[in-house]
Amino acid sequence: MKITEGGVCAAKGFTAYGIHCGIRKNKQKRDLALIYSEVPASAAAVYTTNLVKGAPLAVTKEHLADGKAQAIICNSGNANTCNAGGEECAKMTCCALADALGIKETDVVVASTGVIGQPLPTEPILNGIPELVAGLGADKSCFAEEGIMTTDTVRKSVAVSFEIDGKECKIGGIAKGSGMIHPNMATMLVFITTDCSISSAMLQKALSGDVQNTFNMVSIDGDTSTNDMVVVLANGLAGNAEITGEGKDFTTFMRALNTVTVGLCRLIAADGEGATKLLECKVSGAKTEKIAKTVAKSVICSSLTKAAMFGADANWGRVLCAIGYSGADVDVGKIDVKFVSVKGEIAVCKNGAGLNFSEEKAKEILLEKEITINVNLNDGEFSSVAWGCDLTYDYVKINGDYRT
Amino acid sequence: MKITEGGVCAAKGFTAYGIHCGIRKNKQKRDLALIYSEVPASAAAVYTTNLVKGAPLAVTKEHLADGKAQAIICNSGNANTCNAGGEECAKMTCCALADALGIKETDVVVASTGVIGQPLPTEPILNGIPELVAGLGADKSCFAEEGIMTTDTVRKSVAVSFEIDGKECKIGGIAKGSGMIHPNMATMLVFITTDCSISSAMLQKALSGDVQNTFNMVSIDGDTSTNDMVVVLANGLAGNAEITGEGKDFTTFMRALNTVTVGLCRLIAADGEGATKLLECKVSGAKTEKIAKTVAKSVICSSLTKAAMFGADANWGRVLCAIGYSGADVDVGKIDVKFVSVKGEIAVCKNGAGLNFSEEKAKEILLEKEITINVNLNDGEFSSVAWGCDLTYDYVKINGDYRT
Repeated sequence: MKITEGGVCAAKGFTAYGIHCGIRKNKQKRDLALIYSEVPASAAAVYTTNLVKGAPLAVTKEHLADGKAQAIICNSGNANTCNAGGEECAKMTCCALADALGIKETDVVVASTGVIGQPLPTEPILNGIPELVAGLGADKSCFAEEGIMTTDTVRKSVAVSFEIDGKECKIGGIAKGSGMIHPNMATMLVFITTDCSISSAMLQKALSGDVQNTFNMVSIDGDTSTNDMVVVLANGLAGNAEITGEGKDFTTFMRALNTVTVGLCRLIAADGEGATKLLECKVSGAKTEKIAKTVAKSVICSSLTKAAMFGADANWGRVLCAIGYSGADVDVGKIDVKFVSVKGEIAVCKNGAGLNFSEEKAKEILLEKEITINVNLNDGEFSSVAWGCDLTYDYVKINGDYRT
Repeated sequence: MKITEGGVCAAKGFTAYGIHCGIRKNKQKRDLALIYSEVPASAAAVYTTNLVKGAPLAVTKEHLADGKAQAIICNSGNANTCNAGGEECAKMTCCALADALGIKETDVVVASTGVIGQPLPTEPILNGIPELVAGLGADKSCFAEEGIMTTDTVRKSVAVSFEIDGKECKIGGIAKGSGMIHPNMATMLVFITTDCSISSAMLQKALSGDVQNTFNMVSIDGDTSTNDMVVVLANGLAGNAEITGEGKDFTTFMRALNTVTVGLCRLIAADGEGATKLLECKVSGAKTEKIAKTVAKSVICSSLTKAAMFGADANWGRVLCAIGYSGADVDVGKIDVKFVSVKGEIAVCKNGAGLNFSEEKAKEILLEKEITINVNLNDGEFSSVAWGCDLTYDYVKINGDYRT
């Protein structure tokens, strides 16, 4: 397996594009993205667990009921949620796009991201579709990446190539963060494409299993979005024998998918609203996998720990505090904590009590852009990783007046 | 019942004081507080649910096993948690104080608040006790209030007088916030005194019931402290017939206690770390009390809602989003939301969808210091209130480098 280029166009038969159609006020910002497969593809998806759901989710769920799709259209700037006529708008979008592409309306996935509670104007989308379709290209993933961004500061894409059944396959994904992100849901918007041949059922199985250890282990701010979804399209153009059950090929596929999703998780966390640092909490030595996950997520969600990391302050007491209130069954007297970055590692807590450590060395480590908080519970064999970011002035600034 | 002055010295027979003994570097800051009852008192307490617990909690629990206490000593600047020798230090403190006051060591309640993970030096406390005891006075609650402050910017006390059995009784309380505060625990440090005569069992019953609707409904930052406790001492000097069961007197007592605790909740929330505003979420029309509480807490805990309130931005979509991910069983299509302050009220969402409203009027309302987010679920008869504050640059500043 190797990392490659091209985002959602890395896999054979996929093209993409993104334009500014007029939903966002800033004309410099693309606000409509399209991903297209030249043949119908197996499709799988996971969705937000928020009871308040964006209108596009209902339409997409209906369209994916048969496990097939051929195009994904997504606007930014408006979530099409908690408003009047949201579903109608999403359906009109699908209908117009299907017409323009000459595909079935039910093979269109529709998604929206942005402000909640305002009517989504259909006109700019319908007017934009011809330009969007005309611009489709196999080298234009970057335009789609831009089109789905909200407060994201960087485009996010990861792609890998791997071999199955003697054929070269590729998986590529793009994502948008960057606020309203919290574990226990499908999380954020992620669109993944692959030319690997795999049945809808096995694709759904791969995705549902993977998100438990990837997107569900990311938290930026504890707020679960109303519009999250992760969608995978597999068009089979790599020519491998279709994966229809477990086995070596499925394992290879899972591993490749995981490389893409972990890559996207790290990109999303690093670009969390206002973030200056990527935080990773690696928990080992847990009695159960659930304990490992609960502890990792609790640490990554702690506002106090996040603020301390912003200040490069080795305030490990807050890490222990977050473990203590996580609800996980741990023996506090066995816990070890280390801070790790490219500058090295420093042990700060052993058996639940503070160690004497060099504040200077700790500062040097914590001033880096990627910090790992290493927690060993010394109580079993299970481990887990969660991703997040620091809490900064800019998070407050961005969210203090998001709508203007 | 009427509001009165005097904090923990409002009730007969209680004196208090606070000094700088040397735990905190800043000599302007008092860091050791004492509350004393001239006679042994009934005592009740609730404690943090964090698995990581401060050493003083273990000692206090042991001392309160008999439901009696006569003095409370509390230091700020160091939590005496996750360190070596913490319990010994807490015990030596109790022993020295008991000697100085001529009371039983097991009648001393000990508490600490501040940085986690550093040894608490016993010497400054032992050296400070004579001065602390010598300074005790019935007009010195304010010194004790100062002595327990950490990042608090204002002293916090509330007292009321009321009549039971023809006797005037008083209850007064003091509190320290202001970070690491989150529902579902005993929360923060609160010391309450009363001269009402009430058995330890009924005092515990009153306190345990009350905190479910008061301190457990406050959240500043979602981080549950390791050192939280609420302690009530009732010395009986008001001379009323002892309350030993339910009935009119107990109801009167509960109501007075609730006035003090709600008052302290509001003070704690308004002085949350970095806060510029007190937020109150009032939920009505819930199918069950649990749903009302879950929804109120979810809204008050939402970082995005808190940041929007800081920016006086009527971004009610975030309120709906927080209700949606709360886990409570609600019908989104029935939810109404209003923002309320002294400047009036504005309806922003009806039946789960946005209303046209004046952004100008909304801004005027949200620029005030106390904002109520009014959520009507229109689905039943239960209601609840939660308290919190906005999320500001200063929260990040305070917590980015707390230890220096």
